[in-house]
Amino acid sequence: MEFNPVDHPHRRYNPLTGDWILVSPHRAKRPWQGQVEKTATDNRPTRDPSCYLCPGNERITGDSNPDYTRPYVFANDFPALLTDTPDAAGDSDLFRSSGARGEARVICFSPDHSKTLPQLSVEDIRQVVDVWSEQVTELGSKYPWVQLFENKGAVMGCSNPHPHGQVWASSFLPNEARKEDDNQRQWLTDKHSNMLVEYARQESESGERTVVENDDWIAVVPYWAAWPFETLLLPKRHILRMPDLKDSERTTLADIIKRLTTKYDNLFQTSFPYSMGWHGAPTDDDNREHWQLHAHFYPPLLRSATVRKFMVGFEMLAESQRDLTAEQAAERLRNLSETHYLNA
Amino acid sequence: MEFNPVDHPHRRYNPLTGDWILVSPHRAKRPWQGQVEKTATDNRPTRDPSCYLCPGNERITGDSNPDYTRPYVFANDFPALLTDTPDAAGDSDLFRSSGARGEARVICFSPDHSKTLPQLSVEDIRQVVDVWSEQVTELGSKYPWVQLFENKGAVMGCSNPHPHGQVWASSFLPNEARKEDDNQRQWLTDKHSNMLVEYARQESESGERTVVENDDWIAVVPYWAAWPFETLLLPKRHILRMPDLKDSERTTLADIIKRLTTKYDNLFQTSFPYSMGWHGAPTDDDNREHWQLHAHFYPPLLRSATVRKFMVGFEMLAESQRDLTAEQAAERLRNLSETHYLNA
Ligand SMILES: O=P(O)(O)O[C@H]1O[C@H](CO)[C@@H](O)[C@H](O)[C@H]1O
Ligand SMILES: O=P(O)(O)O[C@H]1O[C@H](CO)[C@@H](O)[C@H](O)[C@H]1O
Repeated sequence: MEFNPVDHPHRRYNPLTGDWILVSPHRAKRPWQGQVEKTATDNRPTRDPSCYLCPGNERITGDSNPDYTRPYVFANDFPALLTDTPDAAGDSDLFRSSGARGEARVICFSPDHSKTLPQLSVEDIRQVVDVWSEQVTELGSKYPWVQLFENKGAVMGCSNPHPHGQVWASSFLPNEARKEDDNQRQWLTDKHSNMLVEYARQESESGERTVVENDDWIAVVPYWAAWPFETLLLPKRHILRMPDLKDSERTTLADIIKRLTTKYDNLFQTSFPYSMGWHGAPTDDDNREHWQLHAHFYPPLLRSATVRKFMVGFEMLAESQRDLTAEQAAERLRNLSETHYLNA
Repeated sequence: MEFNPVDHPHRRYNPLTGDWILVSPHRAKRPWQGQVEKTATDNRPTRDPSCYLCPGNERITGDSNPDYTRPYVFANDFPALLTDTPDAAGDSDLFRSSGARGEARVICFSPDHSKTLPQLSVEDIRQVVDVWSEQVTELGSKYPWVQLFENKGAVMGCSNPHPHGQVWASSFLPNEARKEDDNQRQWLTDKHSNMLVEYARQESESGERTVVENDDWIAVVPYWAAWPFETLLLPKRHILRMPDLKDSERTTLADIIKRLTTKYDNLFQTSFPYSMGWHGAPTDDDNREHWQLHAHFYPPLLRSATVRKFMVGFEMLAESQRDLTAEQAAERLRNLSETHYLNA
């Protein structure tokens, strides 16, 4: 019997985290009788009087939002990290703790309550890119890690459909940052090349896993994707952090984000839920040449607007498992229109 | 300012996985306006004609279940692993894959459709323990890793409320197994003691994180818990694998499982969802003395029967974050009745 990735279970290696993924593509055929998700409504007003993120509205704390017309950033009213926490006391091998300081902010992408990223213009998304970059510069001067992210959709724990993301800066390198730092550094030492610059080059050449591409950026379903329609968004040249982006690269980034998220929405004709976020080199004085800036998109949907992949049981206790190959997922996304289904 | 774990964010270290957890206990106060979960119905019939796991009923494949009266095991109709997959072909540094063979089975805990583990008698749970052990013996003779687990509740991707678990055996050590193997081995080398035997001893002595305990077993909210009411179930003596359990230890295990899962149900007066599973030493010929048998329970609920913790955004991209301390969670669980709320 000859190996065929579309029929035969196999494992793939994620060189960024050092983890493996179990790929079981034959399993996509099983029927689903489990939980179905609610879908988001497509018709929201441009202003919602009860939304605590809309311009002019009151927040839970009693503060009011200004009448903002561009992306608007404010301190999270319930931050997971505080600026002035004392250091954790007491430590033993089995009961080991450490201090954690930081800041958490909310970034409203647009004053328009009714829109999500793919529905904004390239110019408007470009403003979001600029704000992301400013946050990395500002918070990065105080903290070694600045995590930009967006939770989109109720199924991803997002409690407000107003288009927004978050930024959490921390006094420590979180687990995922530390793993990516270790693995990228080791790669540079062993192979004298930058892991993700090399990866983007090979993916662009092959095209097999490419979803969308422009002069400066490429979005692929990575070879080692765990979530069904996971993507990795990469610049083609070596860039450590978002503030290092040139003016033109910010605009092409806005372009590729719009095209990628439009395809996502078109896949199941729904406002596609995901968690996405940026990983750039840590913002400290150490040598971080082994890093390459990138964004991860982790979307949970598997078969339709209402049937998701559950990362439970075997996944939590043993290893992530997926039901279609990265190449199959990429092909489906690649073939979708770049006109949003609501405008088609 | 003096450090106080109940007021001050801090990080804790998980010596089994090598990961850190961000603890932000002050955050439990934030209001929740996001997704709420459906609750399970408490009244199910003892037999459901449409259930493909009930005795005598037909499955999707057309096979019929026997009229079983004790736990019943059958091969998963849609297994993620197959026995005779060819080895993965072709490999490069960035596109690395490997072969994966194995077997997946379903374990019906009881013929009674209406009951879950806490509602079974100690004698009935003891039968489940015996079947778990038999599966490890049988599949362990062919595969180095045998993953026993249960997904309970629709929110944990379980598509059938009939009490059942699964076993997936694999030709490889999955990620989590490999991490626990590495860390337990290193601990034995460095400290000349067994990590989890020592941990159970210290937890039993302190009692601070103990949920329930008997002569042979202890269940704690581990110091490094990520999920709000996560528990770790440990034998007190050194035991590598489930088949090594003595007769009396199987009965005390059934006892502690009944007590722990009853408390879980009583916490929010609901059939408490979770993924749980067993980690024992790999079933190969290597020296695995550094291992200690244990079970993890990963339940998603945070505040009520309908409000869960979402591990999204920051958690996926950076680090797991929790909203109450392990000690607070343990105290709540410890103080709950051991009589199931449906019988109270
Ligand atoms: O095998 P089941 O119960 O159909 O499926 C469930 O458990 C599996 C093992 O944890 C997961 O891979 C699936 O995502 C989940 O829906
Ligand atoms: O901060 P939010 O949006 O209220 O909360 C959401 O995102 C956080 C960061 O990923 C998570 O910790 C929460 O579990 C989730 O509900």
